Amino acid sequence: MEKRTFIFDGKAKQLYATDDPARVVILYKDDISAYNGIKKSSIHNKGILNNKISEIIYQKLEENGIKTHFIKRLDDRNQLCKKISVFPLEFIVRNVIAGSLARRLDMDEGVRPKNTIFEICLKSDFLNDPLINEHHAVALNLISYEELNKVYELSLQTNRVVTALFSQVGIDVIDMKLEFGYDEKNNLLLADEISPDTARFWDNVTKKKLDRDRFKRDMGKLEESYNEILIRLTT
Amino acid sequence: MEKRTFIFDGKAKQLYATDDPARVVILYKDDISAYNGIKKSSIHNKGILNNKISEIIYQKLEENGIKTHFIKRLDDRNQLCKKISVFPLEFIVRNVIAGSLARRLDMDEGVRPKNTIFEICLKSDFLNDPLINEHHAVALNLISYEELNKVYELSLQTNRVVTALFSQVGIDVIDMKLEFGYDEKNNLLLADEISPDTARFWDNVTKKKLDRDRFKRDMGKLEESYNEILIRLTT
Repeated sequence: MEKRTFIFDGKAKQLYATDDPARVVILYKDDISAYNGIKKSSIHNKGILNNKISEIIYQKLEENGIKTHFIKRLDDRNQLCKKISVFPLEFIVRNVIAGSLARRLDMDEGVRPKNTIFEICLKSDFLNDPLINEHHAVALNLISYEELNKVYELSLQTNRVVTALFSQVGIDVIDMKLEFGYDEKNNLLLADEISPDTARFWDNVTKKKLDRDRFKRDMGKLEESYNEILIRLTT
Repeated sequence: MEKRTFIFDGKAKQLYATDDPARVVILYKDDISAYNGIKKSSIHNKGILNNKISEIIYQKLEENGIKTHFIKRLDDRNQLCKKISVFPLEFIVRNVIAGSLARRLDMDEGVRPKNTIFEICLKSDFLNDPLINEHHAVALNLISYEELNKVYELSLQTNRVVTALFSQVGIDVIDMKLEFGYDEKNNLLLADEISPDTARFWDNVTKKKLDRDRFKRDMGKLEESYNEILIRLTT
């Protein structure tokens, strides 16, 4: 068992150091929030479900040659991961119009555009995580154009693998928020998590939402929906 | 003299048909507005000044091989131009941080980033001309990725020529809003105007603003500032 020192308390996860400086433990909490922390709650078992869902997804990504920070799940709530220095940017991949994009462009939710939509948001609670573009990100000295191209390519590959995995269990991947960073050996890796907290998943027949939008929109049945994803992925 | 039929009344210009279906007359008004038309006024002689400033710029662009809709200035307020079907998009080129970008990213006005910043805004009064990115523009079926690449290349060339022209008269080009479209022969052309209504121009020593920000920020001396640009460009 690895030693742990508390490093950071995030909105839905906690970060701990281990006795290996290149490895961290990520603890998945039940806390849920939206709208830059204005709306908050706790969902029973959510941390356990997301830990297991994200494990399945990151294992599948690794099997498909996509390098991630994930090493292994330790227990119900804890993952061992590579320590990453992440870009302070959220990379969003959208296959279907939903959420903030539907509001921004006055488009109907559920429409599938002909192209994959990439977005970059600046991680800044103060500025409310604004949508920016690649030129802004470069001007802010947060990333280079070359790194952006690599991130887009990795995002596209990730999208393909996750979409195929969920397609097998009757779920459409509407969009995903991805984070990337460098490990100590300067490998560019997919970081963070992919779960119904950070992606939109809809039943591909009924279009039932199985993700955090159920919390944002007060639709209830969060635990049941997250659990349904896990059950479909494991049976 | 060409016949004219009124077509459209814009915020700062009017459009008239001529007896040639491929040509229009653009009339430059003294009306000025900001913040999606919430703030409005009229500036004495502004239309005359912008008509002449834009003429000088578009002639210089044409001399440098950049195809534009501009044919010739007819009189104080009127230009003869090619009839264009424009993309409903604003293409912004930024050399120095100012205005909405400074607010969006909490950056200081006047900072010159290492890269040229391109932005796309959707022309929509209803949505308040939101910042979008190229993937949104393609998803909305407004433009293709190939067309966007051509627009970026033309924007960069335009920026180079205008920056060089204004540099000779001691003025920094901070940013510019450009519009593009197709003529009847399917040539991609620079449309609209480039003037202190649509670009930011600062004296390169004193950093004095010589553009519409003087109206937006209630700094006064609009006519004098626009006139100073014209005088510098013509003497």
